[in-house]
Amino acid sequence: MKEKIGFVGVGRMGANMARRLGDCGYRITAVYDAHRPAAAALARELDARHARTLAAVTAAADVIFTVVTDDSAQLSVFAVHGDSLLVRARGKVFVNCATVTPKTHVEVGRRAKRWGAMALEGCMASSISQARQGTLYLMCAGERRCFERVRPILERLSTALRFVGRAGRAAQVKALVNMVMNANTAALAEGLGLGAALGHDLDMLREVFAQTGAQSQVLKTDGEDMQNRAHECYFSAAHAAKDSTIAWVLGCEAGLQLPIAAAARLQFERLVSLGLGGLDKSGVAELTFKGRHG
Amino acid sequence: MKEKIGFVGVGRMGANMARRLGDCGYRITAVYDAHRPAAAALARELDARHARTLAAVTAAADVIFTVVTDDSAQLSVFAVHGDSLLVRARGKVFVNCATVTPKTHVEVGRRAKRWGAMALEGCMASSISQARQGTLYLMCAGERRCFERVRPILERLSTALRFVGRAGRAAQVKALVNMVMNANTAALAEGLGLGAALGHDLDMLREVFAQTGAQSQVLKTDGEDMQNRAHECYFSAAHAAKDSTIAWVLGCEAGLQLPIAAAARLQFERLVSLGLGGLDKSGVAELTFKGRHG
Repeated sequence: MKEKIGFVGVGRMGANMARRLGDCGYRITAVYDAHRPAAAALARELDARHARTLAAVTAAADVIFTVVTDDSAQLSVFAVHGDSLLVRARGKVFVNCATVTPKTHVEVGRRAKRWGAMALEGCMASSISQARQGTLYLMCAGERRCFERVRPILERLSTALRFVGRAGRAAQVKALVNMVMNANTAALAEGLGLGAALGHDLDMLREVFAQTGAQSQVLKTDGEDMQNRAHECYFSAAHAAKDSTIAWVLGCEAGLQLPIAAAARLQFERLVSLGLGGLDKSGVAELTFKGRHG
Repeated sequence: MKEKIGFVGVGRMGANMARRLGDCGYRITAVYDAHRPAAAALARELDARHARTLAAVTAAADVIFTVVTDDSAQLSVFAVHGDSLLVRARGKVFVNCATVTPKTHVEVGRRAKRWGAMALEGCMASSISQARQGTLYLMCAGERRCFERVRPILERLSTALRFVGRAGRAAQVKALVNMVMNANTAALAEGLGLGAALGHDLDMLREVFAQTGAQSQVLKTDGEDMQNRAHECYFSAAHAAKDSTIAWVLGCEAGLQLPIAAAARLQFERLVSLGLGGLDKSGVAELTFKGRHG
């Protein structure tokens, strides 16, 4: 019999993962969100219980996915006092999918172990639509036996599943991916912004970029959106700022100079400080095209 | 009957272009290089005349390719006094393939016109081996009738031929391409350098980059070389510094802030100042891996 699944944090990412597992025949038994209307709506949609406490999610499920916003939220759902996923957690498996610092994953793993449960990092380098379709890029870390236990579930969410090592390692890899992605994004915005200022046809310029050493994944995903100011959010500038900061801190701790990553981080921080953190990361072009912002 | 072709500047790029046109049945009638042994060797190889003066190249050829090192060299081969390609240049076509500033192309075009000749920018976004195989990415600018006149020759050098507008425009596009490419390269070096410092398997990391938003052309061309410190030169750090500077100046003139491009420019300038400008652009990783340089 298939495991019962719980979800904590049902923003667009978490909700789509829950929908996908529901489609695959898993029973979503409980959903929880600090923003109750979101949890209530998804609970109705999936015929799940709308849990009002974290402890109720643990009680109702075997495997609990958490898709929360940041380090503090991640640690608070695993609080050692008060309402917590750790209450009567013996034998449960937690799969933590938020982008948080490696240290937080290590700490959550420690707490879970102390309460007789297991925690797995499930870092996603993917978008909301991929969550819905079960085509996530999913990097896991923690104890391998924990990964093996939930692998059948993860395989329904992902077309690229990878185990990268001990707790914290997947978060590191994801931070590295996003650090490079964000820098490439900010660099592309500068190339297109300067091209526009010089009066070049940006369709032509993007085509040339695509055929030369300037080619990149972000050119495909963000180039046209930068040109057209179509910054509907797939991966927000605020998230980009956060991820670049995680990587930048890792770099500082390692004693490395990372000037490009630092400059990209500042661009995304600047977007946030201008109140534009909710734009897609392509919104960084708003800073580099003449007469937009900045 | 096919045009007679001359070459000025026969470093590895120019020499390979000449070899390729020779293979295609063109007669290379004269070659010139400020470094005489290079010209002498290529002249022997291609049964061409080793021209000791620029005027002799113009006299011996209908279409003259120039592949020189920088702005000052580009202007000096079109000097208005003394030995110059402009001597008795009426009716000749010059195809100028160096990466120089847009302004230099404009000035050379003006001089050629005054002497009754035509000048075309032929900006290459390609490597030495592509020159040899006739698979260059070639962006041209200048007068369209000039482009049309030499198009059959250019088609033997290139698998991607493009006319982008008036004099100076191709150099601008190339500067934009290389600005983005250099930034992506420097960002990749930081990602791999930090990954190495954290003890990640770089084969794994490059594979993850290739499958996610961190994917880029420079990951394919430079990633493994960064890991293995294999910096044999295809496109030198010194060239990267020069091209990033051209773009950075265009940005300054346009009144734009380009912090990523500026940071990347500084990294390549730093390589040059450390005496490492002769390394391939992948050599920027020497600055970001712990215990290498800097």
